Amino acid sequence: MGALSFEILKRDKQTHARLGLIKTMRGDIQTPYLVPVATMGSVRALGSDDLLSLGAQCTLANTYHLHLKPGDELIKRLGGMHRFMGFDRPVFTDSGGFQAFSLGFAREHNISKIGNIFPQDFRKKYDDECTEVENRSARGAGYEKNEKRKPKENLTKITDEGISFKSIADGAWHFLNAEKSMKIQSNLGTDIIMAFDECTSPLSDYDYTRKAMLRTHNWSEESIRYHDKNQALYGIIQGGWFEDLRRESTEAISAQPFDGIAIGGSLGNSKQDMHQVLDWTIPRLDDDRPRHLLGIGEIDDIFECVERGIDTFDCVSPTRIARRGSLLISPQAGGSQENKFHINIKTAKFKEDRSPVDPNCTCSTCRTYSRAYLRHLYVSRELSYFRLATLHNLHFMLRFMEEVRESIRTGTFAQLKEKWLRKT
Amino acid sequence: MGALSFEILKRDKQTHARLGLIKTMRGDIQTPYLVPVATMGSVRALGSDDLLSLGAQCTLANTYHLHLKPGDELIKRLGGMHRFMGFDRPVFTDSGGFQAFSLGFAREHNISKIGNIFPQDFRKKYDDECTEVENRSARGAGYEKNEKRKPKENLTKITDEGISFKSIADGAWHFLNAEKSMKIQSNLGTDIIMAFDECTSPLSDYDYTRKAMLRTHNWSEESIRYHDKNQALYGIIQGGWFEDLRRESTEAISAQPFDGIAIGGSLGNSKQDMHQVLDWTIPRLDDDRPRHLLGIGEIDDIFECVERGIDTFDCVSPTRIARRGSLLISPQAGGSQENKFHINIKTAKFKEDRSPVDPNCTCSTCRTYSRAYLRHLYVSRELSYFRLATLHNLHFMLRFMEEVRESIRTGTFAQLKEKWLRKT
Repeated sequence: MGALSFEILKRDKQTHARLGLIKTMRGDIQTPYLVPVATMGSVRALGSDDLLSLGAQCTLANTYHLHLKPGDELIKRLGGMHRFMGFDRPVFTDSGGFQAFSLGFAREHNISKIGNIFPQDFRKKYDDECTEVENRSARGAGYEKNEKRKPKENLTKITDEGISFKSIADGAWHFLNAEKSMKIQSNLGTDIIMAFDECTSPLSDYDYTRKAMLRTHNWSEESIRYHDKNQALYGIIQGGWFEDLRRESTEAISAQPFDGIAIGGSLGNSKQDMHQVLDWTIPRLDDDRPRHLLGIGEIDDIFECVERGIDTFDCVSPTRIARRGSLLISPQAGGSQENKFHINIKTAKFKEDRSPVDPNCTCSTCRTYSRAYLRHLYVSRELSYFRLATLHNLHFMLRFMEEVRESIRTGTFAQLKEKWLRKT
Repeated sequence: MGALSFEILKRDKQTHARLGLIKTMRGDIQTPYLVPVATMGSVRALGSDDLLSLGAQCTLANTYHLHLKPGDELIKRLGGMHRFMGFDRPVFTDSGGFQAFSLGFAREHNISKIGNIFPQDFRKKYDDECTEVENRSARGAGYEKNEKRKPKENLTKITDEGISFKSIADGAWHFLNAEKSMKIQSNLGTDIIMAFDECTSPLSDYDYTRKAMLRTHNWSEESIRYHDKNQALYGIIQGGWFEDLRRESTEAISAQPFDGIAIGGSLGNSKQDMHQVLDWTIPRLDDDRPRHLLGIGEIDDIFECVERGIDTFDCVSPTRIARRGSLLISPQAGGSQENKFHINIKTAKFKEDRSPVDPNCTCSTCRTYSRAYLRHLYVSRELSYFRLATLHNLHFMLRFMEEVRESIRTGTFAQLKEKWLRKT
């Protein structure tokens, strides 16, 4: 397969971290890298001009959502995803399999990708926050009107043949299988696509997780058969939080001629569990293909996963938390694991704060505006807030990834991790 | 007064249109010009980088709203409005007097600046649209959740001493008079400020309109006395839709040593009425001060008012209609008075339309995206829509104003008007 090449430029001596270069027809991706997410074909609140000025190397769009709206065939007729969204650098798409989880079990049981990270008290706090955000959107200024996190209808039905989805757009049932997922991704014309898989829940038992994994392996073979050979195809390792299943899945997926390997599915019930999954998985992978960790990408995750040998990540977190008022700050500006490296801009203490969000940040938002101004925009529900906040958080994360790469290049990865993750 | 100078560079031979140059400490404004509105200190959905890339010569912010939130004293402590919003070109502020109208009588009686332009059937249509927009904001993607246009509490009390406002922010009563309005505008540190006035309603009778006009004249003198001499001060002509009052007000205001003259208040019940008001007013003005028409600025208005001798306008229309899906198009692209020079991007016929909003437009949105993409963002409630749409409409209007200026320069104003306003 020639749609992608991957080169490891440097290896960290103490860890499995590696500095790499993914080459595609539409440009290179220096790794490790956090791929900004453009679910519906736009990084929310930004234009493609913003992505270019941020220096975004690539982006990731959502196969399932774009299939429903506006439709992958429409996008094909309009010249493909890049032309559609005005972005000519590499675009990833997931396969739609993750939606079997997020619209199915996760929706029904209120869980996220890393287990039930919502204990009761946090759940309460989270619900309150969602309610508040809804109330705040009285003027509709773009706050995400999150569905209340109550158990909801499972919108998927899964068989060996594929996954049926009840569309959140029109209520109709849609069917996806490997062949169809490959066809949709081919219509989208993206650069790096994912094999069709079933993403299980942390609450799935061993037997169910195994069944889903075996299905995924079959679908992987079908994905290889049906995929557009102009696109680079990543296989997805499943197996939940079961060591033998992860091992089995790692072997099955890496035996296939994929261009890259993604790690998907349930990553256990905590961040430690997630590290465990990587430890079961990555040492069994060959070295010559890029490795992508699906749906993960907070600061601490990135250190832990890069040092285990992950090359790329995608995560909605930086952009989503920006819209909710959380702006990222570096350790020099008081960021730490305790505060999740962010300030909440709506806090009253920023009312008169003339400093930028992060005095060390060189983004356009920090170069131009004070915390006081951003707080004013946020509490006044001004639409401009969302862009300025998103620009900051994305710049921050992309700059952070640059630091991570630089640290591998210069043999200082451990020091960088220490600087960011030391307890305060 | 030396905070502003004004020069007429060229006069149209057939009409009273004039090409002018307003000079301020923070830069020049070539006129005729439509000043983009940044009510709360941001042009909604844009950053100041966008204003610069649009080539916006200046902007207009709202004294009353900024006084309430985040507070003019706070803005002063933060270094003034320009630093606050990251925009170093001239900024206008209104005086707060208009809010006596918009939060008072207009709110109670459901009327707009040009009379009761909402006949019953339009009213119904408008209400439906508002409801639809509200429903659409389920994901809160930034649509303006307009208050239903039902009669509401009058939030103002007006006496000869000043205007009391019930804050929409916290329900408390705030008092504004000329001295206070001047102080607030001084705190904001803007470049061109407005005298304190009372803006009456088209439904106000002769006696009330006269009373309010006389108050405005008194407040004008106080504004001159109290205003910050580093700021250029415009007086505001009132008098409603009564010929003798408009004449009287024109004489009273133009007799004062204002830096510029604004025409405010009720402009009658139709666009024809508005032209009538200008015909009563402008011929009585001296020639050496810039003239601003408050709150007006659609394409046809601009032609009619420029040819009567107006130099600057401010209007929320281009940015507001953008957010509601209306994107401006030129006559070459099918724009006409009948369709108000816009397309509604949500229309199904644009689903597969690969052309830009206006093929003749050189804005970043038109250079990058298709109507199909913008429609997709709009119907998917993506936040990115608001910026791309706003960028187009503002670029369109600013480019249009450039064409108007160029036509005066080259003696082709009448032809330009004919090209835009001919019936199709």
